[in-house]
Amino acid sequence: MSNQPSHPALLIPGPIEFDDAVLQSMSHYSESHVGPAFVATFSETLSMLRKLFQTTDPAAQPFVISGSGTLGWDFVAANLAEAGDDVLVLHTGYFADSFADCFQTYGVNATQLKAPIGSRPQLPEIEKALKEKKYKLLTVTHVDTSTGVLSELKSLSELVRRVSPETLLIVDGVCSVGCEEIEFDKWQLDGVITASQKAIGVPAGLSIAMYSGRAIKAFQNRKTPPASYFASFKNWLPIMQNYEAKKPSYFATPSPQLVHALHTSLTQILSKPLSERFAIHRETSQKIKQAVADLGLKQLASNPADQANGMTAIYLPENVTAQQLLPSLFKKGVVFAGGLHKEIAPKYIRFGHMGVSVTDAKRGDIDHAIKALETGLSDVGYQKA
Amino acid sequence: MSNQPSHPALLIPGPIEFDDAVLQSMSHYSESHVGPAFVATFSETLSMLRKLFQTTDPAAQPFVISGSGTLGWDFVAANLAEAGDDVLVLHTGYFADSFADCFQTYGVNATQLKAPIGSRPQLPEIEKALKEKKYKLLTVTHVDTSTGVLSELKSLSELVRRVSPETLLIVDGVCSVGCEEIEFDKWQLDGVITASQKAIGVPAGLSIAMYSGRAIKAFQNRKTPPASYFASFKNWLPIMQNYEAKKPSYFATPSPQLVHALHTSLTQILSKPLSERFAIHRETSQKIKQAVADLGLKQLASNPADQANGMTAIYLPENVTAQQLLPSLFKKGVVFAGGLHKEIAPKYIRFGHMGVSVTDAKRGDIDHAIKALETGLSDVGYQKA
Repeated sequence: MSNQPSHPALLIPGPIEFDDAVLQSMSHYSESHVGPAFVATFSETLSMLRKLFQTTDPAAQPFVISGSGTLGWDFVAANLAEAGDDVLVLHTGYFADSFADCFQTYGVNATQLKAPIGSRPQLPEIEKALKEKKYKLLTVTHVDTSTGVLSELKSLSELVRRVSPETLLIVDGVCSVGCEEIEFDKWQLDGVITASQKAIGVPAGLSIAMYSGRAIKAFQNRKTPPASYFASFKNWLPIMQNYEAKKPSYFATPSPQLVHALHTSLTQILSKPLSERFAIHRETSQKIKQAVADLGLKQLASNPADQANGMTAIYLPENVTAQQLLPSLFKKGVVFAGGLHKEIAPKYIRFGHMGVSVTDAKRGDIDHAIKALETGLSDVGYQKA
Repeated sequence: MSNQPSHPALLIPGPIEFDDAVLQSMSHYSESHVGPAFVATFSETLSMLRKLFQTTDPAAQPFVISGSGTLGWDFVAANLAEAGDDVLVLHTGYFADSFADCFQTYGVNATQLKAPIGSRPQLPEIEKALKEKKYKLLTVTHVDTSTGVLSELKSLSELVRRVSPETLLIVDGVCSVGCEEIEFDKWQLDGVITASQKAIGVPAGLSIAMYSGRAIKAFQNRKTPPASYFASFKNWLPIMQNYEAKKPSYFATPSPQLVHALHTSLTQILSKPLSERFAIHRETSQKIKQAVADLGLKQLASNPADQANGMTAIYLPENVTAQQLLPSLFKKGVVFAGGLHKEIAPKYIRFGHMGVSVTDAKRGDIDHAIKALETGLSDVGYQKA
């Protein structure tokens, strides 16, 4: 239950449902972006992000910038690579194609290592690719929102460190930060970019990232200036460092309301051990995946080890279209998303299960959605074979 | 009076004070960014922007993108100019320096035409500059937030059309849209970029712009691809057109809450004739400027024709510092801003008077601020000579 007006439960892979207190923070009265009250809020927010990413390395650098999650790609491409550099993009769906596009925009050569839909590139082929060419960066989509495929970061990082130690490991964590285990320091990640509106549980509008000291040093050793103005480490690094040190500072006006909402959500998230948060996302995901299997349906990610814990991408039964099923679910008070992977978009739907819909059992969102999926399929004439 | 918790009146040149209904829209329950309800809201918002800019030309194109106002510069530099192009930047303070920096980032040659602090480049020198070189764009800061200098757009446009008709006229309207008269069609402007947190009256986090059909055509005739990924017309044009046509579309996730707040504010603004809105900002500005003169203080913008109507930049008296005065004003419940123009920052303060603080007389913000300025100056020992 929430204090929000009655509305269908938004169970797409972001934006997700938001907690009442987070939404209330969105309507915070106006404050100066350089006044002491907001500067303190921003400082605490940046410090809390370090905890969310499980980093205690003072050289690591959090960023909170007004923009969509997509803006994070520009930050990576325009600051950590230079025109002519080679980068290796592990492909698990729609988002690797777009990230590669972003690199090309900045003159960076993106080589994609593609896996069949619903799968992910395997370590031996990644090792082979890393040995063939010197890559400045390797990027991986932790959870591909288009397919629900989860990538494994720990063994990937070990591989990169062993085979190509100078390559920076960059994680697109838009659909994973806040619901999938990420140990920034221990796994020696160099950059994790994400957005506010998924498992972090804050309305869309913030591009959020953590970079390692190694990544910052690589930026400082560039031969050419950053290739973007708004998405420039040069412009934002001193601002982020000053805000965290509680010194007012200006490059572009941040959004006090969104930062307040992020402060509220991070305070809630960090009030319990992160391990509990990841565990309940895993358990809830298992329950949903079991229900999907019980309905005789298949997931895009066929291998259980490759299945995300914050979303499930489900193949529609033969003869059932998303145009039939999604409106039927909507009438039952549940919003799922259609397919996004261009090769098979009409053939599947996506069920997002992150944040308060998972952690706040009193809302009943997940049980309600599973029930709606069962009856909705039955309404459109589907019967398990 | 408002329903917001008691707080000092924020009278800096943005963010400004926000209306209760606008803040309430910020806490709208979560909606899908591609669902019919939000798509309708976004469509109406884009249509209302056309009215705010006083354009009925169907070829003109509004943009609403998650980001700071600064992001608007990247859109201009990365889409309307190409590496090697020349652009002429009219300089009235801090913001022209930064806009020029942005152009240089994308390999565009920015020539600045500078005026003494508190003044603006005059038409004859602009004419001379336009005749000396072929400029792809001319940019002007409509109101320079660092100096309170207002530029005159109508005669500038006539000059550009007469002397260099192919040059696109780009207006940085961050501190002017919503409080200064702008006739997009009639004045033949090619681009006006702005942000949400000033006279539009919406929390920071949206980069807002209007471009002419001529500007869009210039973009389409580029020889090279756009130089930014997130700030790319190629990526966003179809999205904006689709949203306005009520078709769901995806490049990056917009912020439903900020768009709802913009929808609410534009609905309020457009509920009365725009001429009334501009008139009350002019009248209030006159009253403030008279009070400043009565206190024996001078403005940075010495010529009345160059004075903005949404803010006033005021030289501090000898022997009074901002470090003394601003905390004294804060204690009286008023927040002013310090100086921003790097050459004279410690010597002046800025008083923002835009939006509900001006249009909603019941709040009493302006009278309260004038009184606070008088007593605050007296408290720190200032006596009019």
